[in-house]
Amino acid sequence: MGERYDIAIVGSGPAGLSAALNAKIRNKKFIIFGNKNLTNKLVKAPKINNYLGFFGMTGEDIKNQFEAHLNSMDIKITEERINAIYAMGDYFALMVNNETYEATTVILATGMEYSRPLKGEEEYLGKGVGYCATCDAPLYRGKVVTIIGHNKEAEEEANFVSELAGLVYYIPMYKGPYELRTNIELVEDKPEQIKGEIKVDKIVLKNRELETDGVFVLKDSISPGQLVPGLKITDNHIEVDRLMKTNIKGCFAAGDCVGIPYQYIKSAGEGNIAALSAAKYLDQKK
Amino acid sequence: MGERYDIAIVGSGPAGLSAALNAKIRNKKFIIFGNKNLTNKLVKAPKINNYLGFFGMTGEDIKNQFEAHLNSMDIKITEERINAIYAMGDYFALMVNNETYEATTVILATGMEYSRPLKGEEEYLGKGVGYCATCDAPLYRGKVVTIIGHNKEAEEEANFVSELAGLVYYIPMYKGPYELRTNIELVEDKPEQIKGEIKVDKIVLKNRELETDGVFVLKDSISPGQLVPGLKITDNHIEVDRLMKTNIKGCFAAGDCVGIPYQYIKSAGEGNIAALSAAKYLDQKK
Ligand SMILES: Cc1cc2nc3c(=O)[nH]c(=O)nc-3n(C[C@H](O)[C@H](O)[C@H](O)COP(=O)(O)OP(=O)(O)OC[C@H]3O[C@@H](n4cnc5c(N)ncnc54)[C@H](O)[C@@H]3O)c2cc1C
Ligand SMILES: Cc1cc2nc3c(=O)[nH]c(=O)nc-3n(C[C@H](O)[C@H](O)[C@H](O)COP(=O)(O)OP(=O)(O)OC[C@H]3O[C@@H](n4cnc5c(N)ncnc54)[C@H](O)[C@@H]3O)c2cc1C
Repeated sequence: MGERYDIAIVGSGPAGLSAALNAKIRNKKFIIFGNKNLTNKLVKAPKINNYLGFFGMTGEDIKNQFEAHLNSMDIKITEERINAIYAMGDYFALMVNNETYEATTVILATGMEYSRPLKGEEEYLGKGVGYCATCDAPLYRGKVVTIIGHNKEAEEEANFVSELAGLVYYIPMYKGPYELRTNIELVEDKPEQIKGEIKVDKIVLKNRELETDGVFVLKDSISPGQLVPGLKITDNHIEVDRLMKTNIKGCFAAGDCVGIPYQYIKSAGEGNIAALSAAKYLDQKK
Repeated sequence: MGERYDIAIVGSGPAGLSAALNAKIRNKKFIIFGNKNLTNKLVKAPKINNYLGFFGMTGEDIKNQFEAHLNSMDIKITEERINAIYAMGDYFALMVNNETYEATTVILATGMEYSRPLKGEEEYLGKGVGYCATCDAPLYRGKVVTIIGHNKEAEEEANFVSELAGLVYYIPMYKGPYELRTNIELVEDKPEQIKGEIKVDKIVLKNRELETDGVFVLKDSISPGQLVPGLKITDNHIEVDRLMKTNIKGCFAAGDCVGIPYQYIKSAGEGNIAALSAAKYLDQKK
């Protein structure tokens, strides 16, 4: 457990980056979580013409501009995926695989890329289904845990869980090779449904069934409602007011995750507002 | 009276410009009203660091980038000041000194620069006080009209009114020389209060009083509530929802005029949303 940040920004798309610039200018102690390439949604855009000031440029060109801007202000992205965020009253706990970060305020700028839930996934969420294996591992000491891994990073989580759990099944949703401890059973099959009574007791795959006490679905992105328990979601987006406040005190949000239209400069504009709202909240707390 | 536009954008700051880009991309027939230098608020900024993608640049530098962007998309600003906008049911009538423009939708992006009203100004608005002398001139045929001119353009309006009115007093709020018709009485004095019974009957200046049937205050900017009769204003800003809709059907707003924080990229983001909302409204009307 390290220092407590004033602001933790989750996401490195235009919304998160714009929030970071303004957190920096406002002299707040902040951290921004995201990816090396900032966001796929920028890198993959062939031509962007509606970001005022940039024209005839590819997404890659604009990404480079954004990066130069971050560098010029000495802002570094922490390459970690936040798995869960808990409102602790006076601060937030942000859960990463092997670490917990603390921050007085949070800005959610996660974008809108997350896959459809599995049948039974939402029903058993918190009743054997989870999104952060390392967070909940202690609950499964000596038990059977199934991990559905959507990316390579999930292997690390599986390895960690296998130190405590009695048995770990690992179902990869991507191509190998896999770096798994020898006590993990690799199951190359397609998950179809999570079943149980009060709690999870099995997972149905295309070709077999596994008895299991817990299922962790480790995806690229987690929907905000699952990321932050208690967060108010309306029509699949985080509900915010015009100052980007969510229903949770100290928690702000910006970008695609708060609603349509899905656009770069709209996201950047909202990130700007969210950071200033967080700064104001912090200043008033003192 | 010319063609009817799909979208009329009022204001050439970041909000209006961003709206224009998106109106263009969405293939709408639009017009944007504003200034040659785009906005003073950009030109006067010594250094801007919180517009994602631009760093270490002056406002003038960024203005040049914005201009290049407009040029690349063949967008021209119409240098006219809109004095009043009337919701006509199916369309809007935008009043300029010598012309009326028509548009099916309006995007207000006027910024927040307008002076304090004179004592009595708000009380007698519509009861002898107005902001568009040329629009209301016919009401003052043969009568006495006082014009408080905040800029040189007001002289043109005064000259026009003097063709119909019985007597025109012109009170300049700036330094001369003035180009006024000889039948206009120049009054170099400081206006203090507008008075009357049911309607205006006099204006009190620092050193004298003038009997008058009407007073026109011709400012650089008109507050949005005065610009668009019936527009809902809350806390001195235009009330909008998250899609930038105002209380008037077909009328959208963006930028400083809809609320704090006053910021470039926030304004640009909102202009983007407003244009897409206007486009959607137009498409649904068909
Ligand atoms: C191919 C393509 C072309 C497009 N073209 C245009 C265009 O021309 N003009 C336009 O205006 N818009 C365009 N868009 C839309 C635009 O990309 C999005 O609106 C914009 O990227 C949203 O920004 P954001 O910051 O909200 O989220 P995103 O850009 O989605 O960024 C979110 C980032 O946060 C990361 N993240 C998410 N969850 C976590 C977590 N738990 N922990 C750590 N990091 C996390 C994600 O991995 C991602 O990097 C396009 C989109 C695509 C896909
Ligand atoms: C000196 C200075 C420095 C600043 N620095 C920063 C900064 O570093 N970062 C930041 O984010 N923000 C900064 N700001 C704030 C920023 O300038 C504003 O938030 C932004 O310009 C608002 O954009 P807008 O499009 O809403 O309105 P404006 O920029 O005010 O533009 C409105 C335009 O519309 C025109 N207009 C108004 N009414 C009419 C009408 N009836 N008819 C025709 N045209 C009309 C106006 O003349 C004007 O040109 C600064 C402001 C100032 C004054």
